[in-house]
Amino acid sequence: MLWMMDLDPLNHQSEAPLYRQLYEQIAQQIRSGRMGRGTRLPATRELAGLLGLNRATISAAYEILEGEGLISGQVGRGSFVTLQPEPGVAGVDWSTLLERSDAPLASHLPASGREAIRFVMSQPSRELFPLDAFRASCAAVLERKDLADVLQLGSPSGYEPLRRRLLEEARRQGVAGVGDDLMVTNGCQQALDLLGRVLVRPGDPVAVEDPVYPGLKNLLAGMGAQLLGIPVGADGVDVEVAGRVLARERPRFLVVTSNFQNPTGATVPLSSRRALLAAAHASGVPVIENDAYGELRYRGDALPSLKQLDERGGTVLLRSFSKVSFPGLRVGWVVGPKPLIERLRNAKEASDLHTDQLSQAVLLEFAESGRLEAHRARVLEAGAQRLAATLDACREYLPAGARWTQPEGGMNVWVRLPAPLDAGELLPRAQKEGVAYLPGRYFEVARRQSGALRLSFAGLDPEQIRKGLEILGRVVAQEIESASEGLNPAPAMV
Amino acid sequence: MLWMMDLDPLNHQSEAPLYRQLYEQIAQQIRSGRMGRGTRLPATRELAGLLGLNRATISAAYEILEGEGLISGQVGRGSFVTLQPEPGVAGVDWSTLLERSDAPLASHLPASGREAIRFVMSQPSRELFPLDAFRASCAAVLERKDLADVLQLGSPSGYEPLRRRLLEEARRQGVAGVGDDLMVTNGCQQALDLLGRVLVRPGDPVAVEDPVYPGLKNLLAGMGAQLLGIPVGADGVDVEVAGRVLARERPRFLVVTSNFQNPTGATVPLSSRRALLAAAHASGVPVIENDAYGELRYRGDALPSLKQLDERGGTVLLRSFSKVSFPGLRVGWVVGPKPLIERLRNAKEASDLHTDQLSQAVLLEFAESGRLEAHRARVLEAGAQRLAATLDACREYLPAGARWTQPEGGMNVWVRLPAPLDAGELLPRAQKEGVAYLPGRYFEVARRQSGALRLSFAGLDPEQIRKGLEILGRVVAQEIESASEGLNPAPAMV
Repeated sequence: MLWMMDLDPLNHQSEAPLYRQLYEQIAQQIRSGRMGRGTRLPATRELAGLLGLNRATISAAYEILEGEGLISGQVGRGSFVTLQPEPGVAGVDWSTLLERSDAPLASHLPASGREAIRFVMSQPSRELFPLDAFRASCAAVLERKDLADVLQLGSPSGYEPLRRRLLEEARRQGVAGVGDDLMVTNGCQQALDLLGRVLVRPGDPVAVEDPVYPGLKNLLAGMGAQLLGIPVGADGVDVEVAGRVLARERPRFLVVTSNFQNPTGATVPLSSRRALLAAAHASGVPVIENDAYGELRYRGDALPSLKQLDERGGTVLLRSFSKVSFPGLRVGWVVGPKPLIERLRNAKEASDLHTDQLSQAVLLEFAESGRLEAHRARVLEAGAQRLAATLDACREYLPAGARWTQPEGGMNVWVRLPAPLDAGELLPRAQKEGVAYLPGRYFEVARRQSGALRLSFAGLDPEQIRKGLEILGRVVAQEIESASEGLNPAPAMV
Repeated sequence: MLWMMDLDPLNHQSEAPLYRQLYEQIAQQIRSGRMGRGTRLPATRELAGLLGLNRATISAAYEILEGEGLISGQVGRGSFVTLQPEPGVAGVDWSTLLERSDAPLASHLPASGREAIRFVMSQPSRELFPLDAFRASCAAVLERKDLADVLQLGSPSGYEPLRRRLLEEARRQGVAGVGDDLMVTNGCQQALDLLGRVLVRPGDPVAVEDPVYPGLKNLLAGMGAQLLGIPVGADGVDVEVAGRVLARERPRFLVVTSNFQNPTGATVPLSSRRALLAAAHASGVPVIENDAYGELRYRGDALPSLKQLDERGGTVLLRSFSKVSFPGLRVGWVVGPKPLIERLRNAKEASDLHTDQLSQAVLLEFAESGRLEAHRARVLEAGAQRLAATLDACREYLPAGARWTQPEGGMNVWVRLPAPLDAGELLPRAQKEGVAYLPGRYFEVARRQSGALRLSFAGLDPEQIRKGLEILGRVVAQEIESASEGLNPAPAMV
């Protein structure tokens, strides 16, 4: 094996002698495994020449390495990395181990400065949680005859009474066909994760919306997928571009949010749903329909899901209790072709055995008792008010040239500020005034979204929304003003 | 691109004409993407020669392919796979998509034949669940002032009041040092999964016990890890072998069950713990200490964990509420160096956002109220009786030559039947008599365990245990008898 190592430049001003610095760098490479057993080190003369050091310096470093059992010299053949460093000098080098880690990077939210009004999280309002209805549902579960079964180890497919109810409902609605099955997951996020585990290998292309939910982008990027961004407009994902990309790139799958997309709030119209299915079918690409927000329609008529429209078994539907009830309880489900669900079940078992059964039993009770539907009615009423307040306040407070989407449901409005404003640069000023949001860059795949920002309105009441947008409008106006001042002709450079 | 496809032999007896069979095979390869756009098909003459068919048969197949837009012919250049098959002829080919799937295969348990006595699952007894204490803990959670926080979206690190309590306890016990942090997971299984996601890439060596918990073997194999099995004896993992394997192979990590290993029930003695840490340290290999069973010691003195003994930050400890309380509630935790925990947190967020908060809050209350400790005392008493009943019944009913382990806690006893008995072959007969267990092959890594079987005793009462082993002993005795009959000299073959 040839000698291969990167040495950082030695520091001639340091108090540590050069031979010591050299020793430490090489020892580190050996301990971390970057220089494996049998690796030949360069001759002292050679390394001295390469580094512009005295040969005695190199020899001194090698002597310590040899003394510690990290290398051993063989007359006439040079020095080699040996098998076992002496106990007590090695240890786990976490920084090196984690350097090559595949783990996705978290999308760190903007540091919270105790802003009064946070449009940051796409989550329901804490104040609307029906605590008494929740307590009543828990109480009913605690009285169940099968309570011990809830507490015992369960099935990767889900708590059977809940799974059965969800599957029956899916069949009644034409969501699940004869070839389909259903599995419970820890919310939609885990369904996306398991689909990635089963279908994606490093380097595989996967088509997603652009802009897209950051949790999906980070997940797939962490798996080494090559993301193909399909632009999202007022009518959701661009079906023509999608058709071309699917035919050309044959991605492993396409993830689409048919209703109230995160971050844009856009909904895919019926004709586009059909066209998208035809394109996916023609290219043989599965469609993952991420429908976490579908139950939150505030106006207009509900559309059939892609899964309902697809009679050819190419679509997988993800749903969840999180957005419409309690996000702290992690229960969602996935409906798709039986062979896929069986693989997802195996991946689920490897991942965490099964979804927590207490929450599954409580949410089943919450749904069966009619409390979920009653709560949803209140959530829809409040959501409609909050959405209207957001759109009204955008009209009233955002400057000329700003554009925003007109969602019919969900939790998010997507705003584009007039050029050359940068929503990311603006954020610290808005935070100083007590308002936070997520700038466009969190959501971008291939297309820059520097002028865009997401307003997640569902967690704020109409008064907070108006106040927040008033402040945001003021910050934006100030920025436009100072930007136009910046456009004054500059003096000649001499 | 050259022509590359595998054709199955055509069936000359089939009712489907040969050109149709050929067309279908090629169409399938194109639709599944195995033959990509631009792939050149062989000339009809060439393929006819290769397959020993009439050239008209090949032409007929090509004509249909062309009619469907799957290929197109260019005069003088041959036929090529075209970009877009016509809509309506393609579709998602799940079997091909799933063929190359990385998902781990589930370890399907032996089909349950309603056996009266199942030594199959390493889980606590349903009958011992303290239902009233559980109800009281739930009631207390429902009265919490922060109930709405429990129901709202939470942190990937865990429900903060629980995380804080676990971390403080870990610090008090010397389990967590100054450089350590703690994260909540969906039981130990998810901690193992997240560690694999962060540290293992396909082809990486990982050292595990042999025999080992199947959930770990399947998980790592599904990730493409190369498993290095370290033999487990009466004193747990063989420390000398471990030292050699770690030094030679430098695996990404070593997973060790220090207490009451699954499946053997073996515990690593103190001196071996120290030796193991020294060896891991010398090789720079992290140790993952899987301690799901540590709280279930029925006799003998508790030993310090590897994590407590390791002062050099190379050990990661996994614990869980599952085995000592309610496995249906999926809450465990991992303690390790801060940089690792931060990566695990990112992987956790990508995986399922966070662990269910209702169960975290209930288990916190269960622990803080003292109910967990009271329950544990009862579990220990029952466990001691069940273990004693198992060992007594092994002595009484298993035949001469059978060997079994002498665990001091946990849920499992490992039995080796005398050669040439095969526990897997014996199982159907035992099931017919009303007894089930898991044969050795579920647990083997590199060493055959055909004579071995796991008796998971914790879920059965002493009477069931005695009865089950009486039956098992009878089945084994019959098998030995018929095996010795089989040794009678066979008549000469003529």
